[in-house]
Amino acid sequence: MGLMTGERYIESIRKMKMEVYMFGKRIEHPVDDPILRPSLNSVRMTYDLAQMPEHEDVMTAVSPETGERINRFTHIHRGTDDLIKKVKMQRLLGQKTAACFQRCVGMDAFNAVYSTAFEIDKKYGTSYFENFKKFMFYVQKNDLTVDGAMTDPKGDRSLAPHQQADPDLFLRVVERRPDGIVVRGAKAHQTGVLNSHEVIVMPTISMGPEDKDYAVSFAVPMDSKGLFMIIGRQSCDTRKLEGTEMDVGNSEFGGVEALTIFDNVFVPNDRIFLNGETEFAGMLVERFAGYHRQSYGGCKVGVGDVLIGAAAVAADYNGAAKASHVKDKLIEMTHLNETLYCCGIACSAEGRPTQSGNYMIDLLLANICKQNVTRFPYEIVRLAEDIAGGLMVTAPSEKDLRDPHLGPYVDKYLRGVHAVSTENRLRILRLIENLSLGTAAVGYRTESLHGAGSPQAQRIMIARQGNLAMKKELAKAIAHIKE
Amino acid sequence: MGLMTGERYIESIRKMKMEVYMFGKRIEHPVDDPILRPSLNSVRMTYDLAQMPEHEDVMTAVSPETGERINRFTHIHRGTDDLIKKVKMQRLLGQKTAACFQRCVGMDAFNAVYSTAFEIDKKYGTSYFENFKKFMFYVQKNDLTVDGAMTDPKGDRSLAPHQQADPDLFLRVVERRPDGIVVRGAKAHQTGVLNSHEVIVMPTISMGPEDKDYAVSFAVPMDSKGLFMIIGRQSCDTRKLEGTEMDVGNSEFGGVEALTIFDNVFVPNDRIFLNGETEFAGMLVERFAGYHRQSYGGCKVGVGDVLIGAAAVAADYNGAAKASHVKDKLIEMTHLNETLYCCGIACSAEGRPTQSGNYMIDLLLANICKQNVTRFPYEIVRLAEDIAGGLMVTAPSEKDLRDPHLGPYVDKYLRGVHAVSTENRLRILRLIENLSLGTAAVGYRTESLHGAGSPQAQRIMIARQGNLAMKKELAKAIAHIKE
Amino acid sequence: MGLMTGERYIESIRKMKMEVYMFGKRIEHPVDDPILRPSLNSVRMTYDLAQMPEHEDVMTAVSPETGERINRFTHIHRGTDDLIKKVKMQRLLGQKTAACFQRCVGMDAFNAVYSTAFEIDKKYGTSYFENFKKFMFYVQKNDLTVDGAMTDPKGDRSLAPHQQADPDLFLRVVERRPDGIVVRGAKAHQTGVLNSHEVIVMPTISMGPEDKDYAVSFAVPMDSKGLFMIIGRQSCDTRKLEGTEMDVGNSEFGGVEALTIFDNVFVPNDRIFLNGETEFAGMLVERFAGYHRQSYGGCKVGVGDVLIGAAAVAADYNGAAKASHVKDKLIEMTHLNETLYCCGIACSAEGRPTQSGNYMIDLLLANICKQNVTRFPYEIVRLAEDIAGGLMVTAPSEKDLRDPHLGPYVDKYLRGVHAVSTENRLRILRLIENLSLGTAAVGYRTESLHGAGSPQAQRIMIARQGNLAMKKELAKAIAHIKE
Amino acid sequence: MGLMTGERYIESIRKMKMEVYMFGKRIEHPVDDPILRPSLNSVRMTYDLAQMPEHEDVMTAVSPETGERINRFTHIHRGTDDLIKKVKMQRLLGQKTAACFQRCVGMDAFNAVYSTAFEIDKKYGTSYFENFKKFMFYVQKNDLTVDGAMTDPKGDRSLAPHQQADPDLFLRVVERRPDGIVVRGAKAHQTGVLNSHEVIVMPTISMGPEDKDYAVSFAVPMDSKGLFMIIGRQSCDTRKLEGTEMDVGNSEFGGVEALTIFDNVFVPNDRIFLNGETEFAGMLVERFAGYHRQSYGGCKVGVGDVLIGAAAVAADYNGAAKASHVKDKLIEMTHLNETLYCCGIACSAEGRPTQSGNYMIDLLLANICKQNVTRFPYEIVRLAEDIAGGLMVTAPSEKDLRDPHLGPYVDKYLRGVHAVSTENRLRILRLIENLSLGTAAVGYRTESLHGAGSPQAQRIMIARQGNLAMKKELAKAIAHIKE
Repeated sequence: MGLMTGERYIESIRKMKMEVYMFGKRIEHPVDDPILRPSLNSVRMTYDLAQMPEHEDVMTAVSPETGERINRFTHIHRGTDDLIKKVKMQRLLGQKTAACFQRCVGMDAFNAVYSTAFEIDKKYGTSYFENFKKFMFYVQKNDLTVDGAMTDPKGDRSLAPHQQADPDLFLRVVERRPDGIVVRGAKAHQTGVLNSHEVIVMPTISMGPEDKDYAVSFAVPMDSKGLFMIIGRQSCDTRKLEGTEMDVGNSEFGGVEALTIFDNVFVPNDRIFLNGETEFAGMLVERFAGYHRQSYGGCKVGVGDVLIGAAAVAADYNGAAKASHVKDKLIEMTHLNETLYCCGIACSAEGRPTQSGNYMIDLLLANICKQNVTRFPYEIVRLAEDIAGGLMVTAPSEKDLRDPHLGPYVDKYLRGVHAVSTENRLRILRLIENLSLGTAAVGYRTESLHGAGSPQAQRIMIARQGNLAMKKELAKAIAHIKE
Repeated sequence: MGLMTGERYIESIRKMKMEVYMFGKRIEHPVDDPILRPSLNSVRMTYDLAQMPEHEDVMTAVSPETGERINRFTHIHRGTDDLIKKVKMQRLLGQKTAACFQRCVGMDAFNAVYSTAFEIDKKYGTSYFENFKKFMFYVQKNDLTVDGAMTDPKGDRSLAPHQQADPDLFLRVVERRPDGIVVRGAKAHQTGVLNSHEVIVMPTISMGPEDKDYAVSFAVPMDSKGLFMIIGRQSCDTRKLEGTEMDVGNSEFGGVEALTIFDNVFVPNDRIFLNGETEFAGMLVERFAGYHRQSYGGCKVGVGDVLIGAAAVAADYNGAAKASHVKDKLIEMTHLNETLYCCGIACSAEGRPTQSGNYMIDLLLANICKQNVTRFPYEIVRLAEDIAGGLMVTAPSEKDLRDPHLGPYVDKYLRGVHAVSTENRLRILRLIENLSLGTAAVGYRTESLHGAGSPQAQRIMIARQGNLAMKKELAKAIAHIKE
Repeated sequence: MGLMTGERYIESIRKMKMEVYMFGKRIEHPVDDPILRPSLNSVRMTYDLAQMPEHEDVMTAVSPETGERINRFTHIHRGTDDLIKKVKMQRLLGQKTAACFQRCVGMDAFNAVYSTAFEIDKKYGTSYFENFKKFMFYVQKNDLTVDGAMTDPKGDRSLAPHQQADPDLFLRVVERRPDGIVVRGAKAHQTGVLNSHEVIVMPTISMGPEDKDYAVSFAVPMDSKGLFMIIGRQSCDTRKLEGTEMDVGNSEFGGVEALTIFDNVFVPNDRIFLNGETEFAGMLVERFAGYHRQSYGGCKVGVGDVLIGAAAVAADYNGAAKASHVKDKLIEMTHLNETLYCCGIACSAEGRPTQSGNYMIDLLLANICKQNVTRFPYEIVRLAEDIAGGLMVTAPSEKDLRDPHLGPYVDKYLRGVHAVSTENRLRILRLIENLSLGTAAVGYRTESLHGAGSPQAQRIMIARQGNLAMKKELAKAIAHIKE
Repeated sequence: MGLMTGERYIESIRKMKMEVYMFGKRIEHPVDDPILRPSLNSVRMTYDLAQMPEHEDVMTAVSPETGERINRFTHIHRGTDDLIKKVKMQRLLGQKTAACFQRCVGMDAFNAVYSTAFEIDKKYGTSYFENFKKFMFYVQKNDLTVDGAMTDPKGDRSLAPHQQADPDLFLRVVERRPDGIVVRGAKAHQTGVLNSHEVIVMPTISMGPEDKDYAVSFAVPMDSKGLFMIIGRQSCDTRKLEGTEMDVGNSEFGGVEALTIFDNVFVPNDRIFLNGETEFAGMLVERFAGYHRQSYGGCKVGVGDVLIGAAAVAADYNGAAKASHVKDKLIEMTHLNETLYCCGIACSAEGRPTQSGNYMIDLLLANICKQNVTRFPYEIVRLAEDIAGGLMVTAPSEKDLRDPHLGPYVDKYLRGVHAVSTENRLRILRLIENLSLGTAAVGYRTESLHGAGSPQAQRIMIARQGNLAMKKELAKAIAHIKE
């Protein structure tokens, strides 16, 4: 089939009968819902850009098995060059959407399950790798969007899955049948799940033998029976219902998260990639998280590019672009943003092959990358707010600007440099608001903190991967210490 | 008359016929508007607490002229003890409202105009000081709330008032009459203006002789003819219209800002405090800004207390309170917050009398205070989001929780430690969202940056007040440099 | 007797036969040793400035018991005004010495022992308070310098005093006699101990019943039998032996630390202030540490003033003073330095009386103060190095400059702005080096970290004093949480 | 000839009759001078490691012209793989020496001159590229160490070369002869110059037509007539003269800087690479600085590894290794250090070919790299001092420890965990002191700030390379702004 157009992608999602709820009500046509549609547009961009010759190199890859050109989001990384292009693709998409384009989780799940399934099979003689490859070819052939679902609700953070008061607080197998398994539980914070054709489910932590039923990974279509979603609230979500465009800041693109519930969902045997081999849960988590921590060194950098640009435009419109402190703040924003990019590129360039042959990023450096992502976007936002000025949070509404009586006053008094229209000035301020406090701040700030694992998760990995023992030996050698 | 009760305050505002617009429409009853009411409740708290014996010491003062007990917000500081109590009062109110309670600008304008008017009179033989005292006694006697209006829209930041393409981009005198003056212009970002009985207008920058018409200060009632307000949008403002309480985070209190337009407003002679004495514009700005930069060392600290508490409650509910990194983050939040408090207290303790006898804060230390306020709340917010977890921005709406079908799922899957209801967990997360991204983030973040002057304004003052020449002499003495 | 002159102070120390070792040798005349003398000069400044009328107010106080004017370093704080003046005195001395002037530990020990002894007596009917007062009057009358010795070597940090392999790793009572006690142990990092007439010993941590012999506080003269010191090495210490002046950076003033050993030292009964009342060890530590953490908000700020001034002079001499980034860095240095000062002032202004009547600083804010001191001087140093330029660490020696052959080349090539001599340029760079890397960096950097307790010690206190329970209640009230 | 052994390298330097001064005296045998020798040992390590099979891949390369294996320090980078290996080689050497190994400047000068000479020739038909290649083959064949000399003294920073009061404050051509040129001037901060066989001189800033005589690049042997060095003082330099080993911290390795004076030095025509083509001065500076800013993402990371290891050992010896705050600080140090490494790797992986065919790093990312290097080592040092404890700057000297009388006291009281000797504890603390305050702090701190250009130099490059115009377009597209 080859690559799907953006338009066909929209139609393919429209045809699926997903069960989506928001504000206590079933949404019959999520594709046309004004709150949800921008998130779909973001995913669509992964299809649209793949059609453009100038972006072919980063947006697509050639499958080594079939020789066909496929979307890079469905690709298995075969070298460091693939890993680097992944990051560049993500930065490009961040630049074009200023939002989360959601398709990365599937790509990262693909590559993590691929190598892990291979190693489980090697140890246990299972056929997970074949299962996965069959699924993979299906996805590649049809250019599908796949969600990667990892984060369980977790309940009491101080307890293991089997210790929770409610055993379903981690997703688990509740029934084993000859033709497959039945699972129950939920996955929280599922970004883009409702814009996906399929979902790959993975466990969320390392597990011990008592957690056997929780060590499960599989893929099912998003319109599977028993699978439904409750959309999470974002800051300023309902502005999109007001029928105006300016106040939204970014009216075209967005992200979305949903609590995704698996209420006794059946999974056929050939869609299972892990089923009780508890010692591999940790490996799968580590690899998925590793890839996803790399991802943030691309996508957030792209969004950062837009925010830096917006701040620079705001400075122009305020008549402040030549102030040395403004120039210096733009430099600092750029410096921080490019530091994140460095981390994304470095963990890719230092990638290494797994036993299955696909390429893993450098685990230490990917965790370094994500740790920085939990910090720098907050400072970039602060600097953007600094440059923008307080008007960003006190400007009247678009309705005031459009009102025949009030509009002239708003226009008169909120003009910056005379040559620029007040409308354009307000547009750029609303974009900065959107990224700093509004719907996009969910993705650019809080998700930068917690997505792909909260800061402490990376610190644990840094401790583990940092090879302190070797460093101690270096120091003792220099200090001539003999013990 | 003495102190007014909170209830009477509400009624007194209700009686005023102010001209308020929002979303392109006139708001006939601002007092009862669901978006605006929380901001009124915050100001009300300045009346309610003043009635409580346990808070009398910080909330009230005894007028040295009349011997009557008055609300501290209408008081002229007579010593460093007054300055310190002001900061404590502000911290208390921040703790009780988790929002901007708006009445500080009037208090700060009071004290700035008081000493400046005195010095103008001394030089020019004008009667501004008497004018002001008459106004002051009226306010004290009736326990009124007064807005302090300084920030002009400013247009092109690189141009002086008289150089702007539109001469009204700074408020100015457009007509001089025997009985008074007529002014035109606007004041932006006016926090709490619509909850005030009166407004004191001040210029916003130092001025030269060409800006004579712009060097004007006066007070008028908020229902003066020609004076009207257009309410600024806040992040998540319309959540308050949804008829639910939880999702708002802080359903009772809030802040509000308005673009306030003076469309040919008449000011009688006895309400004028500055009128063309351009060289005093800078003094008035510096003193008001100085007091207001001190204020932030109180109010923002109080709000910070609530946010720290909320993060700690979230940690409890997540089952994470014992994790050492969580404890350490709470310590860091406390450390940053108390550093701000130190600055607020220090610039007060180091206050000195002006020529008029009232007390000025230490100008250098007040600017230090505000400079830190432009930084630390952002880091406190980041740490709060870290502790809260991603659920803060992905949790379903209250309507989902209340829905008979969806509610049980939300309740089941979003429970943290078993003993705490999901509702309570969501309540605390919504409060953190409110302060980090929602309506209160406008006050706690962006206003912390730009209120009382943007960061660069403080840096200029620090350079001016830092006495670098003396420090160079110290260094040369130590290094035995003779020039 | 009244106040002692600086000259008499030097002579009084010269007369004492202290046992001082350095580089493996006994120093017969420490007062005249080129490495040690600058530290004595720093203490002398506490005497010299007290003689100057313009500094009388901060440098001295009137004893409420005797009515005599005494040096503030021997004073018991009787109000917040005293506490604030203490900080100002310390800043002044830091400005005049650019070094540690060492006499604060005694003043802080004075005030901590004063109130603690009072409370022990109250509980146990002991006579420690009388003992201490007698000692105090003796010190005040003779204007003596007193060391405050707290930090034990501690051995294995994970073990309590009585658990250590060597029981002497915390100082302890080894013999109890009718006329007194005999103690053994050591105190590490004793700043200025060899420039003191007397030493007050205190325990270093909270203690349980098993540590009874370690809970001991007393005062003895510095030339007591069995008491000796081994001088600690400082970075660049031996530059002072080279017979040149410039390369030292600050040739006149310095600090000094010594490992102080109590090798079976006898303490008469009337010099004992704590003896086995283990539950008061913690109180004494907390109070001494509290006062001493306040101190750093004065002395380090004064040193910071010199460093800021030195950086500004270096910028002048480099011809870079007008560069906007240089000006901005000087502002940042000032901002950080004054933030420390705010903390010093604030914890003083918020002081409260103890049971004994003397004034205690606010414990929370004093810990906030010190915590900032563990951070900001490092950044101030970094900025100073930035402004100074690399020549600070690569300039040839003074001997090269003075050499007839090489001197002209050094003079020619290392000149900055033409009007300033190369010698002066090098002098200011050497002062910056001294404070950044040299002898003074020990005091300005590492001591800022560890003096008065390492960073983690303050964090523990912040956690204890931060009243998290109250803050949680505030948050629950705002969020309408009922449990 | 091939690769030189370390031993032969030492001998080859010994044979050169360089003119070296220190402390006002000519040093006849620099190779055997106790202050200078450790720096020679660091360079030697670049030879020794190149002999080891396990390091062959990073330490050496095969010349594409001759097919011979050469030391990577003399190699022209032919791809991103070369650039990445360069960084790894530098990290390895930093780990083995904990100091500056000095040979990078030559390598970076090699690659910068190579491509620039090519482009000058292309424009002007000169033969600089041939000149350089001839020199290059000579260096590669004999495995020589080459210094790269860029930084002129600069005099008054606000003036261009030709505007200085003394025209020699930037190195310049003072005479043009048929067979070559005569140059006069100096190069400051020359790291490792006295351990080099040859020196490549380059201009230090972009130049205009009036600076023609200053636009000069060439190579001469280090024992050329008229070329001499005055060694710069380092913190603690003379400790190496004390005849003890421990107090030095790192007794084997070090760095060294010298003011290098060209007092009418003759340069033959075939050693000239730039001579008056002023518009290429900026290109040469930018490229050399770019490569050298990359370098710091390798060497400083290696030194950081040693410091992290030393802090971890100190924690072990203090009995504090299990404290959660200590573990967290080690994680933070690792995080910062690896972030630097990410930047070093990323600017290499994103390298691109120049017109001459050799590979240039990504200029933006290399400047990002260096900018981070001006910050993170300072924080790493601060954390190391935190973990080490104050004893690091107050411990008695080695002579005290070795003294029969004092030694037992030092040994008794300064022991940490009982199983570790006091000597080993002091050794590790001295190493941390060395890197924080001592000779190595010059390289790890101040040189990290100013080497390869001061922080502001990178900020200017970031502004230039950051493509703000493109970012503004991105923002306008998202905000639907049409101008």
